[in-house]
Amino acid sequence: MRLQLYDLAGADAARRFSPYCWRTRLALAHKGLPVETIPWRFTEKDTIARSGQGRVPVLVDGERWIADSWAIANYLEDTYPDRPSLFGGSTGRALTGFYSNLADTLGGSIFRFVALDILQHLHDKDREYFRNSREQRVGMTLEAFVADRDVRLAGFHESLAPLRLTLQAQTFLGGDRPHYADYAVFGPFQWARCISAFCLLATDDPIASWRERMLDAFDGLARTSPGYDGPPAA
Amino acid sequence: MRLQLYDLAGADAARRFSPYCWRTRLALAHKGLPVETIPWRFTEKDTIARSGQGRVPVLVDGERWIADSWAIANYLEDTYPDRPSLFGGSTGRALTGFYSNLADTLGGSIFRFVALDILQHLHDKDREYFRNSREQRVGMTLEAFVADRDVRLAGFHESLAPLRLTLQAQTFLGGDRPHYADYAVFGPFQWARCISAFCLLATDDPIASWRERMLDAFDGLARTSPGYDGPPAA
Repeated sequence: MRLQLYDLAGADAARRFSPYCWRTRLALAHKGLPVETIPWRFTEKDTIARSGQGRVPVLVDGERWIADSWAIANYLEDTYPDRPSLFGGSTGRALTGFYSNLADTLGGSIFRFVALDILQHLHDKDREYFRNSREQRVGMTLEAFVADRDVRLAGFHESLAPLRLTLQAQTFLGGDRPHYADYAVFGPFQWARCISAFCLLATDDPIASWRERMLDAFDGLARTSPGYDGPPAA
Repeated sequence: MRLQLYDLAGADAARRFSPYCWRTRLALAHKGLPVETIPWRFTEKDTIARSGQGRVPVLVDGERWIADSWAIANYLEDTYPDRPSLFGGSTGRALTGFYSNLADTLGGSIFRFVALDILQHLHDKDREYFRNSREQRVGMTLEAFVADRDVRLAGFHESLAPLRLTLQAQTFLGGDRPHYADYAVFGPFQWARCISAFCLLATDDPIASWRERMLDAFDGLARTSPGYDGPPAA
């Protein structure tokens, strides 16, 4: 039976922008597993109730419903061990745990640049939910939250120094080929690309070059998804 | 022939406090390779000139002189492949590169708490060099540099969120046993412990518990080295 993935979508059902769902999309592609993606909106909690929680990604594999991108990655690795490894062995799996958590923090940083742009792309039925829940979380209006984003860009770039140094020295975080660590960290960048024209990275940043390679992976899976294309990276 | 390691020392030759040398000390222990450590001070550039640069760690393996902690780790893995792996395979090695870079940034953060304490422990002949070079780097006196350290502690703790989440979920960064990623990240914490009584972590922080496990590793190699012991972690 074909796998199914509940995948966050905007007003345009083709605009798939969750940073967490992108980790799973790329992990499935890495494993060579075809998947039927089902567009899902924030307020459609009922349709994923069988997963026992209210957020995507949710993967359906026959009778099994699995939520949480890290849990899904581990499920895929354990259930399909004969396909290319997401982690590169047991030590690689442990080492990847930190990347998954780091990508969450990176997403939090990027949210301060794109929060308002997300709102513009949401389905009408999601807008009030999104604005209310996010404004409660950040303690201010989304407009105020992103107002100084141009000023904060230099600090964001500085915070990426370890990632930049690494990607100056190697093609992917996982080596010559991307692994789950790459998908996790790429997720928030792809999220931003899908819903915002804001330029997060300078074109000569090695992270931008890596992002291009990630956009090219799996026949351009991420690149061909609706989004904004900045100037091409060096 | 026994390996030799030039290892940064304070006024007390037994006080070995370089975060980079600690990575190497633990990597050597991981490989089960005995080493003769040679106390070295910042201003003794001549004694390591054969390494082609002026900083430690410098490992001497017969005729070979290897500088730079990451280069040494790779050298040890490649030269002693039959001993326990530092990385857990080729993907693990690639994944560890980022930890090495991240540990450098972490060291920079911790320097803002302990810079002045380092000075107190240096050999007389190193003090002027250290103060001048570091004050030039940070653009202010060391006293001014650390003056607001109590205020900055909360921000430092917040910056460790991804590390904390990871070490809540697993025993070591590398899994059930420590790997080079653990040694790299532990380096700056051990650096601080060796030269400062300043309490960097709350005792109930999962990172503090991991630090205790790292202090216990290899029969307490790091714990039995001269340093400050904070209150025991939970």
